[in-house]
Amino acid sequence: MHTKLFIPGPVEVLPEVLEKMATPMIGHRSKACAELQKNISEKVQKVFYTKNVIVLSTSSGSGLMESAIRCCTGKRAAVFSIGSFGDRWYKMAKTNGKEADIFRVPDGQATPPADVDAALATGKYDLVTITHNETSTGVMNPIAEIAAVIKKYPDVVFCVDTVSSMGGTYIPVDELGIDFCITSSQKCLGLPPGMSIASVSEKAYERAKTVENRGLYFDIVSLYEKAQKKYQYPSTPSISHMFALDYQLDRILAEGLENRFARHIEMAEYTRDWARKYFAIFPDERYLSNTLTTVTNTRGISVADLNAELAKRGFNISNGYGDLKEKTFRIAHMADCTLAEVKEVTDAIVDILGL
Amino acid sequence: MHTKLFIPGPVEVLPEVLEKMATPMIGHRSKACAELQKNISEKVQKVFYTKNVIVLSTSSGSGLMESAIRCCTGKRAAVFSIGSFGDRWYKMAKTNGKEADIFRVPDGQATPPADVDAALATGKYDLVTITHNETSTGVMNPIAEIAAVIKKYPDVVFCVDTVSSMGGTYIPVDELGIDFCITSSQKCLGLPPGMSIASVSEKAYERAKTVENRGLYFDIVSLYEKAQKKYQYPSTPSISHMFALDYQLDRILAEGLENRFARHIEMAEYTRDWARKYFAIFPDERYLSNTLTTVTNTRGISVADLNAELAKRGFNISNGYGDLKEKTFRIAHMADCTLAEVKEVTDAIVDILGL
Repeated sequence: MHTKLFIPGPVEVLPEVLEKMATPMIGHRSKACAELQKNISEKVQKVFYTKNVIVLSTSSGSGLMESAIRCCTGKRAAVFSIGSFGDRWYKMAKTNGKEADIFRVPDGQATPPADVDAALATGKYDLVTITHNETSTGVMNPIAEIAAVIKKYPDVVFCVDTVSSMGGTYIPVDELGIDFCITSSQKCLGLPPGMSIASVSEKAYERAKTVENRGLYFDIVSLYEKAQKKYQYPSTPSISHMFALDYQLDRILAEGLENRFARHIEMAEYTRDWARKYFAIFPDERYLSNTLTTVTNTRGISVADLNAELAKRGFNISNGYGDLKEKTFRIAHMADCTLAEVKEVTDAIVDILGL
Repeated sequence: MHTKLFIPGPVEVLPEVLEKMATPMIGHRSKACAELQKNISEKVQKVFYTKNVIVLSTSSGSGLMESAIRCCTGKRAAVFSIGSFGDRWYKMAKTNGKEADIFRVPDGQATPPADVDAALATGKYDLVTITHNETSTGVMNPIAEIAAVIKKYPDVVFCVDTVSSMGGTYIPVDELGIDFCITSSQKCLGLPPGMSIASVSEKAYERAKTVENRGLYFDIVSLYEKAQKKYQYPSTPSISHMFALDYQLDRILAEGLENRFARHIEMAEYTRDWARKYFAIFPDERYLSNTLTTVTNTRGISVADLNAELAKRGFNISNGYGDLKEKTFRIAHMADCTLAEVKEVTDAIVDILGL
């Protein structure tokens, strides 16, 4: 029996999308491959609401996050972290020898825009990283308010991790002024893991050109130039993911972005109500994620046991992340998941626990 | 019409292997995924003839090549280059701020073992990189002779790019003393591009632990430890490639490694004879690749036009690489390609050119 995934990535992938992963190979320097990358880029620009250059990377989202902070930090990076994936960005800076400071709020809280303003007002930073949606806690940052603050500092390269939100919620990249916006295939886009995608502004590209030691595989100058000039990729990309991504972007645009975002909100609202009824919601109620819900384990159940029982019925949810293991559990409602499917898994939990 | 690829990667992938790319998703932290990685590792160890730890990376082969030279160079790297992919290794060193020297022979030549000996005898180097099979020129280096020299220097970490040869020719990693042996999915292993694979010795791992600024995504310490302890991967891997790789490794081992290597030699010998009859062979005859043949364009044909005509018949070969464009062309005979298929493409060339 196949176990349906309600974990915050990898997500369930529709059979017709999986099928595209089995498309026969073409040469990566062929016209057909450049055409494929061009088509992908144009559709990604719609999903991102951007005119910036789109780069693809055969890697998880971490790859392009590392590219951003390594290649675009000139002086010093300000890393605003609201959980494990924000912390990871700081680790990327330090392991690449970059100057950086981390501004960390407690788990469950969002980044206060005033904190961003205060940090940037010091003039010490020329790059800022924000986690839009933190899967370790279920918080979705108030990106519009944060972006409004960052606009006051035109020399700052604004990087956002939208790995677990892009394609599931409205993120107008150009309107927000995001210079480096990163997502990954296996979350709200509804594809298998293995490819990350970013929009890169001319400002980020120009900054990168001034930075030394950018490495090769994740050198954003090379990724940007190859994409911009020829819709190509510096090494050999995962062509299977490109076929599937091209197809899935058509599906996403056919559903309609507004409809897709509304479906995510509907699933999120249902799951939150359910969590409030039977348990409690972990994050600050003002900043709840549209793509996953983190539930506080107020009943002291064994989450591991619950998941084992759910598996027998063909479902898989996530335990809490890191220190939040067993204290919380997470239900993802992202990509092509439907409200009916979310109801199936929550009904199964109620039934298993005899609530 | 599908165009059959005779280019040195991506190669043709068998339909039943492509199908495995469409396997439904599983969680990357699940027991099933660790079991999958364990199975892959054990089979890869057979193909590599090694007991070293096997790491997987969602990236092209360039990713793990960069990992090797960045993470394992302590003092200074000696890069022995016989073509564009050797040159790339030097570029990786320099763009990561590593001390390195390049020893480059003219295109078509192999690395003289005596040159390696002379360089290492200076005591300046603690890492050496060798390209086993250079796809830009069609040279296969005399790896056994080179390895014999390197064994005299036990403090040197020995890194080999077997991206376009592993799985197609005999490379006994442990017998040769290779510390970091890298390959990629889309060459002789017969899979779509998107995953690279390496065997990493304890010596390479211990070295890496002493090196600063290893970055995060390609940090070999983290890849090694996660693989060794739990058969896991630090971020989210391309699970689709893992399913296909697991299946294809079974196929490779069922064919029998010796049979597979013999088939590659048979295809290579046929293609060389054909090239000598109608054109000429580009590389030094002593060091011909078993996995692709680089043909000198002695007739001054338009290789681009030839390939366009071949495409009409459903075949695709490669033009020369970089400066060798139009001066040479390349016919790859790797992975699951058969002698009959190679004959089809060479017969088509003879027919098109009226030879």
